[in-house]
Amino acid sequence: MIGTGYNSVLERSHESASGNYRVLRTTGTGDETGLYTYSTLPDSWLLRTVKPVSYEIRICENLFDPNNSELVSTGSTKAGRRFVVVDENVDRCHGERIRRYLDHHDVEYRLCVICADESAKDFSTAAKIAEQLDAFGISRRNEPIIVIGGGVLMDIVGLVGSLYRRGTPFVRVPTTLIGLVDAGVGAKTGVNFNGHKNRLGTYFPADLTLLDVSFLSTLERRHISNGLAEVLKIALIKDRQLFESLEDHGRVLLDEKLQGASSAGRHAAGLVLRRAIHGMLEELQPNLWEAKLERCVDYGHTFSPTIEMNALPELLHGEAVCLDMAITTVLAHRRGSVNDEERERIFSVMRSLELPRWNPILQPNLLFKALEDTIRHRDGLQRLPLPIGIGDVVFVNDVAHEEIANAVDDLRRLHDEYT
Amino acid sequence: MIGTGYNSVLERSHESASGNYRVLRTTGTGDETGLYTYSTLPDSWLLRTVKPVSYEIRICENLFDPNNSELVSTGSTKAGRRFVVVDENVDRCHGERIRRYLDHHDVEYRLCVICADESAKDFSTAAKIAEQLDAFGISRRNEPIIVIGGGVLMDIVGLVGSLYRRGTPFVRVPTTLIGLVDAGVGAKTGVNFNGHKNRLGTYFPADLTLLDVSFLSTLERRHISNGLAEVLKIALIKDRQLFESLEDHGRVLLDEKLQGASSAGRHAAGLVLRRAIHGMLEELQPNLWEAKLERCVDYGHTFSPTIEMNALPELLHGEAVCLDMAITTVLAHRRGSVNDEERERIFSVMRSLELPRWNPILQPNLLFKALEDTIRHRDGLQRLPLPIGIGDVVFVNDVAHEEIANAVDDLRRLHDEYT
Repeated sequence: MIGTGYNSVLERSHESASGNYRVLRTTGTGDETGLYTYSTLPDSWLLRTVKPVSYEIRICENLFDPNNSELVSTGSTKAGRRFVVVDENVDRCHGERIRRYLDHHDVEYRLCVICADESAKDFSTAAKIAEQLDAFGISRRNEPIIVIGGGVLMDIVGLVGSLYRRGTPFVRVPTTLIGLVDAGVGAKTGVNFNGHKNRLGTYFPADLTLLDVSFLSTLERRHISNGLAEVLKIALIKDRQLFESLEDHGRVLLDEKLQGASSAGRHAAGLVLRRAIHGMLEELQPNLWEAKLERCVDYGHTFSPTIEMNALPELLHGEAVCLDMAITTVLAHRRGSVNDEERERIFSVMRSLELPRWNPILQPNLLFKALEDTIRHRDGLQRLPLPIGIGDVVFVNDVAHEEIANAVDDLRRLHDEYT
Repeated sequence: MIGTGYNSVLERSHESASGNYRVLRTTGTGDETGLYTYSTLPDSWLLRTVKPVSYEIRICENLFDPNNSELVSTGSTKAGRRFVVVDENVDRCHGERIRRYLDHHDVEYRLCVICADESAKDFSTAAKIAEQLDAFGISRRNEPIIVIGGGVLMDIVGLVGSLYRRGTPFVRVPTTLIGLVDAGVGAKTGVNFNGHKNRLGTYFPADLTLLDVSFLSTLERRHISNGLAEVLKIALIKDRQLFESLEDHGRVLLDEKLQGASSAGRHAAGLVLRRAIHGMLEELQPNLWEAKLERCVDYGHTFSPTIEMNALPELLHGEAVCLDMAITTVLAHRRGSVNDEERERIFSVMRSLELPRWNPILQPNLLFKALEDTIRHRDGLQRLPLPIGIGDVVFVNDVAHEEIANAVDDLRRLHDEYT
């Protein structure tokens, strides 16, 4: 017989008509175990439990300074063995320092150097990494994989970590701005599949992500813009003050690559980085597995997955996101939730960050197709975040094809006016 | 500033020395959200949350009877669209009934027929299924994938479900005994990789598993034995009464393929099935993600992954598990925790279930290699479950190579005596 208390737990979560249940559940975060058994043999069982998850994002400096042990301090206390995946470009700039660092800390390591642009973001790259990992051999829980690279590489290696022995911990060191503010902050892993962006993936956060902005000093200017697109996204959906920082200092951040050559640039870089990360974490924390599909961080990500995959390799991720934000800003403007002045301010920031507001790929038919796939991804509804002024969003489900076509016209016209 | 209460939460879980933390966390099982923000900009963040998980295992009858809606009642209330993966053999025996059933319930479906033996358990089979799924297109949360087949196919499709759009729900219908009592009960998915068993996988339980024993009527006798090996495992580690049921009725279960032709066979089938499932769920529930690596359900799974992969395709999974149980029974007997009579009873049940107790592949060197890989899998220690009599285990970390070699000798000798 099932006691009243547990019966109610059962009813809340499960609406099947079947009578003779046995409920197995844990309450709390893994500390207590409540296992209830009954004397009759049941015909069905409901297993309930919770998985506790925690992960850390930490800003740091001089990561490869031999005196800094942060990179090897997670996992086994004696440094032990580490499988380290490094982006090819990063290896070129920092490979020697990385090897010296690992040698200094007596780590038995294998460096796996990978060329990781968006075109290589597929399962075969993940399999290649997994094969080398398997050949090297690491202990299951206390020898975390280390990944040093941009968003694409972190996504791929995160997927490998989540799959290898059904979950091997990993440590992320993002080396691009989009990695620092976006891919390195969340819990998503993934690879492109069948022509669709990140169609295969998992939610599997790195135990620790170490953010060292000094990597940005060797990054191409275009990749700084690329990362600032995701910062702009956070600003537009929830942080007017962050938007104003981008308005005032966007250009200097780009010029100085967030290295703080000037005092104003240094202050702005520290502020923008932290506010972007904090804003994103605030959104992820209560909804890490996307139980709720109305996600304001999906702003800029309704049309962009299809845009990006169709334009491959022309557009970087943040550039595709910016095109999506341009369309949706114009859509919101046509609906009256963004006024003329706000629209102009948004476009002006995009320009100062050297991000695209127009691309000939933006054809209505492609955008309809993109929306259709997004509807499947959002379980049958558009759930499209549209800006309300600057710093807020509303979710809508009724964007018509005609509106999209009109927005494309507006966008082309705005583009022509400025060129 | 971080309040004392949350500070202590932080300290309990995290021992880093860094000072200026911002803790983002949720308590409870997703119902409450506690988000704590502070006025200073931090240098690091600790995100904490829990993922609530529940899944149902339900014994049922006449699953493809048009009047039974259990198979299509999970997910969208109107039957909607379903992607259905079916084992080739199952399609041959039941395909027509399955199609009629789905037509009757107005389901728009695509049947994906797969040949799924252990040799096809690799990522390319998963990718093939994912491609067809992607071409068909399903809504992300309310059109669960359905898989009808044995343990191998359920493991592959579970992996596809866990990866597709980072998690698409699925419903399992096991059609083999090992599927009913083992693969269909747990949360593990996986494929073989790089010559290693289930080296890539996830923890991703089906929302609902429907157990219909009538599928066993068309199963080869050898596959009934194969499933009974996992039942014997549960019996040996924790359920002496289940062991006695196998002693008394093992042969009739095999002869009747659990269809209950006789009254004694019917009673035994009902009891054995339920006790095996319940015993397994009791072990999984408090440790679904294997936070604790001492798992008594790993009994029979220390040497068997390597044995199975090296003997491929000669041995079925349960047969490899039985060889592992034979070795470890003899090991335990040599250590005195299983006496002569108990060892004889265990081997006698293995014989009556027509399971192997010896195979020429059992060479000490292969077993040492197997143990070495298992030690990596168990994070540096053997954590080897060894039987104590019948119905209990102890975990040991000190099995020497010589003991294994001696156990192999014993096993060969016992085999010779009986043949």
